[in-house]
Amino acid sequence: MSDIDMIRAAAARLRGHARRTPLLSSPFLDQIAGRRVWVKPECLQHTGSFKYRGGYAAVSALEDRARARGVLAFSSGNHAQGVALAAAQHGVPSVIIMPSDAPEMKIANTRALGAEVVLYDRAGGTTREELGDAIQNERNLTLIRPYDEPEVIAGQGTTGLEIAEDAAEFGIERADVLVCCGGGGLTSGIALALEADAPGLTARPCEPEGFDDAARSLATGTIQRNARTSGGLCDAIITPQPGDITFPIMQRLCGPGLVVSDEEVLRAMALAWGRLKLVVEPGGAVALAAALFHTGQSGGGDVIAVISGGNVDAGIFQRSLTSYGTLD
Amino acid sequence: MSDIDMIRAAAARLRGHARRTPLLSSPFLDQIAGRRVWVKPECLQHTGSFKYRGGYAAVSALEDRARARGVLAFSSGNHAQGVALAAAQHGVPSVIIMPSDAPEMKIANTRALGAEVVLYDRAGGTTREELGDAIQNERNLTLIRPYDEPEVIAGQGTTGLEIAEDAAEFGIERADVLVCCGGGGLTSGIALALEADAPGLTARPCEPEGFDDAARSLATGTIQRNARTSGGLCDAIITPQPGDITFPIMQRLCGPGLVVSDEEVLRAMALAWGRLKLVVEPGGAVALAAALFHTGQSGGGDVIAVISGGNVDAGIFQRSLTSYGTLD
Repeated sequence: MSDIDMIRAAAARLRGHARRTPLLSSPFLDQIAGRRVWVKPECLQHTGSFKYRGGYAAVSALEDRARARGVLAFSSGNHAQGVALAAAQHGVPSVIIMPSDAPEMKIANTRALGAEVVLYDRAGGTTREELGDAIQNERNLTLIRPYDEPEVIAGQGTTGLEIAEDAAEFGIERADVLVCCGGGGLTSGIALALEADAPGLTARPCEPEGFDDAARSLATGTIQRNARTSGGLCDAIITPQPGDITFPIMQRLCGPGLVVSDEEVLRAMALAWGRLKLVVEPGGAVALAAALFHTGQSGGGDVIAVISGGNVDAGIFQRSLTSYGTLD
Repeated sequence: MSDIDMIRAAAARLRGHARRTPLLSSPFLDQIAGRRVWVKPECLQHTGSFKYRGGYAAVSALEDRARARGVLAFSSGNHAQGVALAAAQHGVPSVIIMPSDAPEMKIANTRALGAEVVLYDRAGGTTREELGDAIQNERNLTLIRPYDEPEVIAGQGTTGLEIAEDAAEFGIERADVLVCCGGGGLTSGIALALEADAPGLTARPCEPEGFDDAARSLATGTIQRNARTSGGLCDAIITPQPGDITFPIMQRLCGPGLVVSDEEVLRAMALAWGRLKLVVEPGGAVALAAALFHTGQSGGGDVIAVISGGNVDAGIFQRSLTSYGTLD
């Protein structure tokens, strides 16, 4: 089970490896939200997303002999790159199982970071689980799950330690901390860190419309599934449902979930571009969109939005600028 | 005259105000350059450029009574916003004289930061100097020059103190520090800081083709002028010639200048977007372009590129992504 001691231990292992991201702000964003808005830009993290923290925490926590055999992950995106870089930095092999129709650049990036990429056909034949089992049995690799994995949650939780530290420095005593939420690894990790180091700060999961499983699960008290798990703009944070480990943590510690539209996401991306000079992917802009356009749903204090990643194709990025790049 | 003591004093005044920007890197950029490339992202500074440092340093250095009367600046861009915010933070008035054909957004931003914006017609009638003299005489404001001003150079030099500090932490003992160069305030300030705190690091000015006054001045040993001072892609760093204060400092401390093409600038902007998740304006990408595509002209060690700003219109940014956004 993840707890604050695991998060502190992960932070110690990540020191000198993960980037210590700052807490940014802009008077223009404050004006839109009608309150002080702070931004934690994990798009500036190695591999362009917070996933490097969890990947590094998990790989570094393995026993030497298990680690030497290598690690395995299923991912079409940010988790793949985080695990690949963490494995390479430990000098151990990584195998990443990716769908053959994943964006060519993500496949190329994951390979360039040192991973062996195994492609599977989403349409049929061998499932990715069968493929994973076969590789795992043959090579005795350790599977690194993307969120329902205590060491991964601990790694993502280091983001929360930094938020608590910077909030204290800036005198932020009460605030909602809005977090882009897929399976809940980042949200639950941050919630645990805040419980220990900044009890006046409350984590809240943020999701895109149509994929609001965490918000509905928190509202009903039982795990809810999404009707579909693909096709959304915010691909990076779309998962079937909250995790078995992450949900109880969120249930105990988080405030209600927030839900934003795709248009609000595109506008938040353009504002991050113009006002913070940050490149944010759609899934990574969900919490900022909630901070800017749903402040009525938030408490009375400051709001801190975690930008979870920046790995976006040029086409989608340009769509944001074409629609909202004049910042009106 | 600017010196290291002034820079350290400016750093003390800027503490808690200027953002402490990190030193970033990407294995993908290292591969392009064939060496380790580090990036100092001053696009993440308040107002989106390093100019806030010099503006704040100059305003904070004024005597109380002079400061209370207010400050004056001529600028169509980044210096305007830096001075406006610094003045607002000191609770004193600022008047910024801007050309009436400056981008609407820059005028709006400068006003939103609290400045009184006075527009002049570039085409004719009253010159901006006549207008400035009239306002200065009437209201007894202190003029903050954009680069040929010791306190401004000291403020920009705080960037160099941070580079020296981070270089020591990352074990970078010898490196060229490439700096986007207009009038030379940032370049000379960084050069002074490195001389004191990191003597193995050498500052070198970087400029766009056709506006390489600093490179030619350093090569010939006397101040050279640009044939034209407008019309370039890299508007933020185009000035008539190096300053009377900045040039002797550059001459004493800097390595030869580097010159890049507009296409290299656009490609560097796309790489900063994709590999660093940073929004960089054309003038701000000049040093990164030199680091990536002119490494043969640099020494054998690491290279550190200072990104000077990120205030770019959506149209020009999209031009970069349309041409180079696939990162091939």
